[in-house]
Parts: sequence; C-alpha cells; structure tokens
Amino acid sequence: MVPEAMTFDLERSTEVLARTPGALRALLSGLPDAWIRGTEGPDTFSAFDVTGHLIDGEETDWIPRAKIILAGGPNPAFEPYDRFRHRARNVGRTLESLLDEFASLRVANLDLLHSWRLIGDQLELPGIHPTFGRVTLRQLLAAWVVHDLGHVAQIARVMAKQYKEEVGPWLEFMPVLTDHERPRS
Amino acid sequence: MVPEAMTFDLERSTEVLARTPGALRALLSGLPDAWIRGTEGPDTFSAFDVTGHLIDGEETDWIPRAKIILAGGPNPAFEPYDRFRHRARNVGRTLESLLDEFASLRVANLDLLHSWRLIGDQLELPGIHPTFGRVTLRQLLAAWVVHDLGHVAQIARVMAKQYKEEVGPWLEFMPVLTDHERPRS
Repeated sequence: MVPEAMTFDLERSTEVLARTPGALRALLSGLPDAWIRGTEGPDTFSAFDVTGHLIDGEETDWIPRAKIILAGGPNPAFEPYDRFRHRARNVGRTLESLLDEFASLRVANLDLLHSWRLIGDQLELPGIHPTFGRVTLRQLLAAWVVHDLGHVAQIARVMAKQYKEEVGPWLEFMPVLTDHERPRS
Repeated sequence: MVPEAMTFDLERSTEVLARTPGALRALLSGLPDAWIRGTEGPDTFSAFDVTGHLIDGEETDWIPRAKIILAGGPNPAFEPYDRFRHRARNVGRTLESLLDEFASLRVANLDLLHSWRLIGDQLELPGIHPTFGRVTLRQLLAAWVVHDLGHVAQIARVMAKQYKEEVGPWLEFMPVLTDHERPRS
C-alpha cells in the first residue's frame, strides 16, 4: 500500500523542523574541511555554505515572512530574500559555531510559532512573494519544511560528490553522484 | 576557491560512515508513520525501507565483499546483492529498532575494518562484482561512503515529497520535489 501524500499539518511540520539542526550536527560535527568545504563546482554551496543559508532563512525568510502575513496589513509583501547573505556574514566562522547558532535560532523560531497558536483560518491568510505573488501562510510553512529537507539532501549529495572519482564502476549505480550536474545551489 | 575533489582516504571514509546512524536517528527518531512510511510512489522506498536497506548493506554487502577481496582467493566473486531483502526481513519491526540495529552493525563493521589495519597495496586488491566485473577494495570502500550519503539524500527527498502538493508556487524553487520523478529506489 502506498500512503497518500500528507496534507499540511502544523504539528507534523514542526516535528521535522525541530529535527533539522540535530540532523546536521550528527552528519557534520567534527568533520574536516575536506568534507565540509567541498562543493559541486564554482558558485555552488558546500555543507558549510548550506548551514549558513539555513541560518539566513531563520533570520530573514520564514518567520519574518509569517509575521508580515499575520500583521494583516493592506500590502503583505515579503522582503526579497538574499541567497548569498551568508557568504559575507560567515567569513571566519567555524562550522561548529554555525551549527550552534542554527540550533538556537530554530528553537526560538519554533517557540514563537507555537506561541501564535495558529488555527485553520489563519493558515489561509495571504502574503505577497516577490517572485510568484500571492501565497498563503500554510504554503509558507510547508515550504519551510521542504526547504530544510531539500538542503539536507543537498549536503549529503555535495559530500558524496567529493568521492565521485573514487568509486570506479559503481558510478552508474549511484545517481547521487550525477544528480544536479548543473546545480542551482 | 573551489577545493579539489578528495582522493580516497580510509580515515576520511570512516569519519562519514561512523556518522550515518546518528544522522538517521536525529532525522527520523520519534516521527510518526506519515513521515517514515511515505514513499515516492509504487515500488519506491520509504525512510523505513531505506533504513532496512542500509542494514542489509551491513550484513550482506560492504564488509562481506571486503572479506572476499582480502581472502585473496583465485576467484574473488561477490555474492549478488538483494536490494529487497529488507522487505520480508523487517515486517513488524519498528523504525526505532531498525535504527538501533543499524547503529550496532555499523559500529561492529567499522571496528572490524579498523582491526584490519589496511595499507595502501591492499586497497588495490581486486574483487569481481556480479554486474560490472573487476573492482578494487578502494572502490568498494569509497562506494560504501557514497551509498550512505545517497541514501541520506534519498530519505530527505522522500520526506520532502510528502508535502509536494502543499507548497503551492514554491514548487518551482524546490528541485528536491521534482528530482527522481522516476526513482530507481
């Protein structure tokens, strides 16, 4: 039996969001730069970069946009999101300090989300995305979850590619090594 | 500066292999079936299935094949690997018990690998893969690392897809939702 895809559920969403910092820590903490600074090529993200990008999301994307929606003003337009904010921000930082910071920010954001005690109607409130226009709070929160999981997948893929030349004929059995040959970061 | 892809290194490899069980636990432990049992469609793996598949790898693939190589016999042919062994094996099991079992098997296998104190020449010893023929111990061990990371990426992708219908227009910004539309499991 193939289960149906889930419909959005706030508790189901926060269960995943709460686990991401620990998952990154378990995967990455203590690894040498060879694993955490490797990329998929020029202008693509390393595991270090992705962690910084997730921090940017906590500070400038998901919860700030939810606040704009919940403020209920006449023009709930989101600020454009800077996907490269982390590059200048995190020069000289260690991955360990970014992992700690991401975990703290996430806890605080989930505490805030919980404190709103959102009910069904509120999830349908609109915001205006700078690229694709009208979205709902429900879609924003679902996208936050998917964004996390997409970046966990990206980190694993970027790490795997550091061994692309080492697996010999296994290459054809390991799609993770050839996924996103032109990555979108 | 884009770092060079890594060349195979035994210590670098075991650093990743040692982290995978903890990463799966951090990502999955305590989640409800809606996240753990969701798939990408008929005949594809859920997070539960992938965990079972990784256990199969510990019991029947990587270390058993390394043993065949190191035995140095005249025909170091690997047993074919059953990618669906876990389906019958794990009926009635909980994910928690699989996560525990995977962690125990992995520790034991890494202890064994360490006990061999492999040196450079041994890494070039050959085995015969049932599909693509001659491979080396070095390639086998590199493939073990990549296999782990590919399945971490798969778990994150399969979970993300449970919300594919929920993100609205973010779909176009989230390649994880459309990767592997015809998954190879």
